[in-house]
Amino acid sequence: MVPNHIPSKEDILAAHERIAEYIHMTPILTSKTIDKFSGASVFFKCENFQKVGAFKKRGATNAILCLSDEQKANGVITHSSGNHGQAVALAAGEQGIKATVVMPDNSPAVKIEATKGYGAEVVFCSANIENRREIVDRVINKTGAHFIPPFNDYQIIAGQATAAKELIEEIENLDIIIAPIGGGGLISGTCLSAKYFSPSTTVIGAEPEEVDDAFRSLKSGEIESNASTNTIAEGLKTPLGDKTFPIIREYVEEIITVTESEIIEALKLIWERMKIIVEPSSAVPLAALLNSKEKFQSQKIGIILTGGNIDVKSALFGN
Amino acid sequence: MVPNHIPSKEDILAAHERIAEYIHMTPILTSKTIDKFSGASVFFKCENFQKVGAFKKRGATNAILCLSDEQKANGVITHSSGNHGQAVALAAGEQGIKATVVMPDNSPAVKIEATKGYGAEVVFCSANIENRREIVDRVINKTGAHFIPPFNDYQIIAGQATAAKELIEEIENLDIIIAPIGGGGLISGTCLSAKYFSPSTTVIGAEPEEVDDAFRSLKSGEIESNASTNTIAEGLKTPLGDKTFPIIREYVEEIITVTESEIIEALKLIWERMKIIVEPSSAVPLAALLNSKEKFQSQKIGIILTGGNIDVKSALFGN
Repeated sequence: MVPNHIPSKEDILAAHERIAEYIHMTPILTSKTIDKFSGASVFFKCENFQKVGAFKKRGATNAILCLSDEQKANGVITHSSGNHGQAVALAAGEQGIKATVVMPDNSPAVKIEATKGYGAEVVFCSANIENRREIVDRVINKTGAHFIPPFNDYQIIAGQATAAKELIEEIENLDIIIAPIGGGGLISGTCLSAKYFSPSTTVIGAEPEEVDDAFRSLKSGEIESNASTNTIAEGLKTPLGDKTFPIIREYVEEIITVTESEIIEALKLIWERMKIIVEPSSAVPLAALLNSKEKFQSQKIGIILTGGNIDVKSALFGN
Repeated sequence: MVPNHIPSKEDILAAHERIAEYIHMTPILTSKTIDKFSGASVFFKCENFQKVGAFKKRGATNAILCLSDEQKANGVITHSSGNHGQAVALAAGEQGIKATVVMPDNSPAVKIEATKGYGAEVVFCSANIENRREIVDRVINKTGAHFIPPFNDYQIIAGQATAAKELIEEIENLDIIIAPIGGGGLISGTCLSAKYFSPSTTVIGAEPEEVDDAFRSLKSGEIESNASTNTIAEGLKTPLGDKTFPIIREYVEEIITVTESEIIEALKLIWERMKIIVEPSSAVPLAALLNSKEKFQSQKIGIILTGGNIDVKSALFGN
């Protein structure tokens, strides 16, 4: 029986057990330089080393494993230009289920290839929500495929919660966990894991100023949208959903917004000092930590590095 | 008593013990994708995570710890535009010794800042060997500083040998270790550690075609130089020395040369698939593995990833 309520402690424990063999228990890294810069003790949960290079593998796997045999028979479908699409593709493939991923027809070739590489069928839509919905509905009507939402879903949230659960289990007595906010799947799960497994740990959100919809949503009490999405943090452009927003409203203590240049500075620190590749969205929590240093002095901070999928070659060497 | 002979097994054991508290025991990573691409089982010794971001910390620390109190009193000096200079700066600082690093006046600002950041005094020379030697001699005459060579030195070689020693101790029964060749300090040490600690392990060198002096040296039996140094692998431009060449000639089974585009492809694989930052020199052994796949089928291969110091921000975002 698949729960359709805010995941309980038992739901998250069950999700973690369910997905364990399909995910990496990712390492937690520290950096003396970053501790010195920030005045805090920072523990980075490296989901850039997760399968498909992002935490999204957790939620997608949990959602797919929760399907009935009947639902699985017709395959799964999602829409994503990024990590969620690759996560659904791989998670479905692992279970021998057909996956269709609807992607904007202006997606970078490298992402299209990666999604196909994990075994999904890629169907293109125009880069607007109406056409995307139309194309998704058309495939569902034709195939009966089951839709796996990117974030606004309790099984997805329970899966994403397992990243913070692992962080909490490995590093005791964290004062604060900082997570980035896009659609809110990761931070919702993070809040629930903190509440259940480390009640003294506070959760703070981090968001680019350019797409500060969650920041404004907390103020207004309603789900706000973004008029423009001009940020380097690709993964954080999405507004919240009606399942993630209530959790965030209840449990996120505060949302800190950061400028684009703060994101780039934090990204540079992670790349140059920690020698690991993370995508810009992953640098947003560190940017928040550094722009609000006073708040975090001498605190024990957990940061979830969400993913590491960037087109290295074209970024570094041109194409 | 400091040995002035090719390091013995005992010398390398002593070096490792001597430097242990000043180096990281770096992790060894694997990648399913790279194993699939190559048909081999590849174990990457991640010296990009080493202090100062490169294996050079090992040799510099060993050389400095081998100095007498009298030698230490006048400080140390070296010339380097890169990792060795930073390694000497930090290793000297750790012992409370003054370090001078002579750098070409066209060195990138980021490298000058890093070297100063580790506490060294930077003195500039023109970008040619004559002027560099003149400036180094001038400082030595004035201060009595002790010169720490970049590679052509038995204490340096014994220090660099500890990277392969750790690799061999953690991963048993390696068939082959592939190391890049610049001045030959790392690969000399690697050969000696293989000989002493895993005699069945073969050592193969990897070198850019553009600076294939070691490849030609093995053929001619003399130390060859490079007419031009047009390679992305900054760290591998140097010719061999009279202490490294005899070790390489005796123990390196073969040198494989690789093109610039093979280096870039291998670099891309490491960055995109392993999600770690390595400098181009580090990708040369993987490039060799991939361009000579047949030789390595089903073999257990160790690769030393030498360092991770690149100017990320200007590479990724312009300056």
